[in-house]
Amino acid sequence: MPASEIDRLIQLLARLPGLGPRSARRAALQLMKRRESLMLPLADSLRRAAETLCDCTLCGNLDTSDPCALCADPGRDGALICVVEEIADLWAIERSGAFKGRYHVLGGTLSALDGRGPDDLRVGALAARASAPEVREVILALSATVDGQTTAHYIAERLADCAVTVSRLAHGVPVGGELDYLDDGTLTAALKARRPA
Amino acid sequence: MPASEIDRLIQLLARLPGLGPRSARRAALQLMKRRESLMLPLADSLRRAAETLCDCTLCGNLDTSDPCALCADPGRDGALICVVEEIADLWAIERSGAFKGRYHVLGGTLSALDGRGPDDLRVGALAARASAPEVREVILALSATVDGQTTAHYIAERLADCAVTVSRLAHGVPVGGELDYLDDGTLTAALKARRPA
Repeated sequence: MPASEIDRLIQLLARLPGLGPRSARRAALQLMKRRESLMLPLADSLRRAAETLCDCTLCGNLDTSDPCALCADPGRDGALICVVEEIADLWAIERSGAFKGRYHVLGGTLSALDGRGPDDLRVGALAARASAPEVREVILALSATVDGQTTAHYIAERLADCAVTVSRLAHGVPVGGELDYLDDGTLTAALKARRPA
Repeated sequence: MPASEIDRLIQLLARLPGLGPRSARRAALQLMKRRESLMLPLADSLRRAAETLCDCTLCGNLDTSDPCALCADPGRDGALICVVEEIADLWAIERSGAFKGRYHVLGGTLSALDGRGPDDLRVGALAARASAPEVREVILALSATVDGQTTAHYIAERLADCAVTVSRLAHGVPVGGELDYLDDGTLTAALKARRPA
């Protein structure tokens, strides 16, 4: 029977995504085995991150400064705004290195099931940013799910009055993907959007 | 691109068993979203656990006291010692509620591949405990793997001179298990160890 301190640690660890009760127990034991090299550094890192990180009021990113490093970087193109659902998506696009404009994190998608409406997302802030004269294009980099595409549709309508081009990510065959393993929806989208070779 | 504080947090989280780089990123974002309810409590819990928990010098369990609560409990039968590989196994047996004796945590199994010999395990301490006059039986609750059974065999030989009975867990069909899904080894063991109905 774990002592109450371990029990509490396991319960907290089990609330992380990807860890259930069993893997939380394993993680707790691993932490206890590496007290100096892992457990205390993790405790410090959690506390420091909680104290220093804040939301960027402009784009919704997380950083130690507000506005965040991406919003403050003069080398990035302020005419392009890439709209993403979550910060994880922003990180994914940054890892690709294919985009050098600004971001806007919505904080989720519209969802009838979860009761998330436009007021729960940062759509108003996006509309305000998009109406600034220097903004030329808003790229909707949302998931190819029903909720994601509903949200993209809603935002496109909402920005119809602004003098910006609204674009979406292309649908098609993933790079490295084999046709045999693709679903019908992706194949249909790739066929429809075919381009001269 | 996550700020360096987030990056460090992700790297530490990714060292927990069960979390890879991707799930560590998700966990970090989840933590940032629940700063007050999850992140700071987890930081505190980690620090408190690291500071208060210690190894029981008697059985190898983790607890806030040495000897641990299990070793100090006068209601438990000191004539029985249950030998387990890891603390997780001790917890599993405690959850079952089927054992009311003492424990001895080896800290692993003998392993030729990983280069773990008898000196890396707490076998000497076990031999010393087993030669105490009040100890009647040593139960080897080790994994039914090659390494686990090798370790069980080694310990049984090592304790041959002590005046204790050395026993092992029974092998057989797991409760709730369907024969159709069982491996040959388990079926063979269950057949060999059959008992009158």
